[in-house]
Amino acid sequence: MAKENKAFVKEITPQSEDFSRWYLDVIQKADLMDYSPVRGCIVFKPDSYEIWEACQRELDKEFKRTGHRNAYFPLFIPESFFQKEKEHVEGFNPELPWVTEAGGDKLEERLAVRPTSETMIGHMYAQWIQSYRDLPVLLNQWANVVRWEKRTLPFLRTSEFLWQEGHTAHATEDEARAETMQMLDIYTRFVEDFLAIPVIQGQKTPSEKFAGAVDTYSIEAIMKDGKALQAGTSHYLGQNFAKGFDIQYLDKDNQLKHVYTTSWGISTRLLGALIMVHGDDRGLSLPPKVATTQVIIIPIGPQKSREPVVEAAGNILNQLQGLGLRVRMDARDDVSPGWKFNEYEMRGVPIRLEIGPRDLENQQVVLVRRDTGEKQFVPISELETALPSLLDTIQHDMFEAAKTFREDHSYTAENLEEMTSYINDKRGFVLAGWCGSDECERAVKDACSATSRNIPFDPPAQPTNCVNCGKPAKHAVWFAKSY
Amino acid sequence: MAKENKAFVKEITPQSEDFSRWYLDVIQKADLMDYSPVRGCIVFKPDSYEIWEACQRELDKEFKRTGHRNAYFPLFIPESFFQKEKEHVEGFNPELPWVTEAGGDKLEERLAVRPTSETMIGHMYAQWIQSYRDLPVLLNQWANVVRWEKRTLPFLRTSEFLWQEGHTAHATEDEARAETMQMLDIYTRFVEDFLAIPVIQGQKTPSEKFAGAVDTYSIEAIMKDGKALQAGTSHYLGQNFAKGFDIQYLDKDNQLKHVYTTSWGISTRLLGALIMVHGDDRGLSLPPKVATTQVIIIPIGPQKSREPVVEAAGNILNQLQGLGLRVRMDARDDVSPGWKFNEYEMRGVPIRLEIGPRDLENQQVVLVRRDTGEKQFVPISELETALPSLLDTIQHDMFEAAKTFREDHSYTAENLEEMTSYINDKRGFVLAGWCGSDECERAVKDACSATSRNIPFDPPAQPTNCVNCGKPAKHAVWFAKSY
Repeated sequence: MAKENKAFVKEITPQSEDFSRWYLDVIQKADLMDYSPVRGCIVFKPDSYEIWEACQRELDKEFKRTGHRNAYFPLFIPESFFQKEKEHVEGFNPELPWVTEAGGDKLEERLAVRPTSETMIGHMYAQWIQSYRDLPVLLNQWANVVRWEKRTLPFLRTSEFLWQEGHTAHATEDEARAETMQMLDIYTRFVEDFLAIPVIQGQKTPSEKFAGAVDTYSIEAIMKDGKALQAGTSHYLGQNFAKGFDIQYLDKDNQLKHVYTTSWGISTRLLGALIMVHGDDRGLSLPPKVATTQVIIIPIGPQKSREPVVEAAGNILNQLQGLGLRVRMDARDDVSPGWKFNEYEMRGVPIRLEIGPRDLENQQVVLVRRDTGEKQFVPISELETALPSLLDTIQHDMFEAAKTFREDHSYTAENLEEMTSYINDKRGFVLAGWCGSDECERAVKDACSATSRNIPFDPPAQPTNCVNCGKPAKHAVWFAKSY
Repeated sequence: MAKENKAFVKEITPQSEDFSRWYLDVIQKADLMDYSPVRGCIVFKPDSYEIWEACQRELDKEFKRTGHRNAYFPLFIPESFFQKEKEHVEGFNPELPWVTEAGGDKLEERLAVRPTSETMIGHMYAQWIQSYRDLPVLLNQWANVVRWEKRTLPFLRTSEFLWQEGHTAHATEDEARAETMQMLDIYTRFVEDFLAIPVIQGQKTPSEKFAGAVDTYSIEAIMKDGKALQAGTSHYLGQNFAKGFDIQYLDKDNQLKHVYTTSWGISTRLLGALIMVHGDDRGLSLPPKVATTQVIIIPIGPQKSREPVVEAAGNILNQLQGLGLRVRMDARDDVSPGWKFNEYEMRGVPIRLEIGPRDLENQQVVLVRRDTGEKQFVPISELETALPSLLDTIQHDMFEAAKTFREDHSYTAENLEEMTSYINDKRGFVLAGWCGSDECERAVKDACSATSRNIPFDPPAQPTNCVNCGKPAKHAVWFAKSY
């Protein structure tokens, strides 16, 4: 009983009261992470690392299906490498950690701990690529990277994080641009279909693009507090890095030409998105496709009738596992069913399967959805079809619910007053016209702390005037506060 | 034709001429790695990274089957952490790279880039473990680690390498010792059954054990130059780290007790072992279980009869892939079959399947084994059974061949003269009696540069006297030069 009481001592702060506090409560109570003694670095505990592993498996399959292969490049990058692409060094220099001593000696040249690997990989590609026959080069790396952030937030902005970074080199601009778009589409499908998070595809404005890119494309998701989270980016790098690192190939026409490169990445900040899109005041809520445990079986009822119930539950467990469903049973008798209900809701398990003596008599079970709380009685004989179908339904409904939330929190602003009011009072995504100037983009930020998220490929409206200066709009832009 | 010529410009140095040169030739010609601009750090190119991925999949399955879960801990470790276990700091301090500046500021405390994570994980376990109910804790981490080595060698000894490190905490010494042995057994089965490399299980002598361990156990393999390679280690750490980091739990008897910990790891140096155990003068030779491509199909014959041959080859490809075999076809017509034969032998593909117009007429193909060079004609209709069985045979035979090699290079020495002669002239593993003193162990090293590999659990003989001092032997010890 001591254990049960302990679990209830600290309730989760409700989202409506303090969303940031809610987030920090959930990630600790659902046992996802812990703070480490190194500033801004967290420990990924097994429950969050497992989600990352599921993401890796799914994306890796897509990368390989589209002809990419994995490789691994060094963690350390010589300081001189950062000087070779001007914007890149300006963008990343303030965030770099430096190794200055190693093996008892002071190093002649400082080594950065990689914040991203365009420079190192550019250097290697320059050695590997000689002829048009060597192109395209399509590599991906799963790795840790470090950016010494001033303000950190678990999963969303940590000094060290885990990610994948794809790096490709092509003979032509067209091919490189097609690759950039292909990867943005793969990210979109992955985030929407696997994580059940709807996203907006679009292009970053020049002030928000990757340091060193010609064009940056992103997918943007809305969190339950109305803030945006950039869920993945794909960069068309043009010949910037090719020229900086001298990546040239001899073309069919016997001319030496610079290649065109791309890079693209998603990271463990997606775990933060999962929590903030689907979580509620009872804790985490995981879409079935990403959940390590999709169904938790909990035998209930009084001690004296326990044995046949647990036996029947065990049979159901075996049967469902045989179908390839990810099912576990919690048959401990030193914690109450109520405690277990709370615990697995907190951890976000999509379906709870309860079975008690009366159910056993009726040859049925109770299924409870984590996302909606709906309960239904299902005959044991129908579980094999009912459960897979319910998991599909939940996956689908979670996506739709998130989409509805986004629609309910999307606005269109004609001027800065409207923008400010929507951002500060309604909290959400605001579509507005933009003339294309840095000044007008900055004016929005100064007015209400919202930044441009992206220029959507498929805007719901086409505003005619710039939200700040009123001149004709060049683009429709989504603005929002962001993580 | 230019491409073909280029490939033949530089032949591999024969093993008999210069084994080290042979090794470096193979890893570059088989496209496994490249040197990076950072001292001692290599690039794992796709062909080697793929092997590592196969190893990860196989081991990860075993770790999870035995109740372990993956997690991820920070890359950086505060300097003060290393002071908490005396032997540990002495062992690792000379090899540490230090981050002294980050985000534009000089750090107050230097951060080591992890060489291994006992200290960081010990610190976290101290927060997580309160009660006997929290035990055992069974975690594993897949990560990069850095040790600033003076002399480096690709895969075998690199400044940065990839590995897994398991870290467990237990209530009793017995449980921790059982875990240590369980993991050594898992490594043994993995290296022998999956990589087809026979190993010797045993305990390290005190001078060779892990810095901070009570007992270190290892599996040792012999390379084709007679040198030993430590293929995996499992450490019983006793209460050393538990005391250094204050990892205590409240036991059932209401007493506060220190836990017992273990750690165990294997790394990308196994790739070096794979190459040096199975490779030959034609290049790499991969055991079927680890090979990404198990069978390469090469259509042959004159241009005019190419079309039906390529079509039949394509059908065979589909049929075999449908069986789950990892098969590829190389139907390029701008390189000759001879060039392809050499190329795929170099890359170590276990089976080559050739099919030409005459074969097609006879409804048969030619299978050529990479390990022995044996050729056989097989009817197309029998491929579905013949190929899986041949892959099994190759896997088995490669292990047996490596075992025979080891037996042919194992000796027993009665005194230092014999030891020196076996080590320097015969090149191999030498079993000898040892009195247990550091002096006698050092005497062997001084005489012939061989170090103690381990005290085998199951020695082939039980020498009665110490190889150096002649006093009664406490242990039989394997000595060898080593990587």
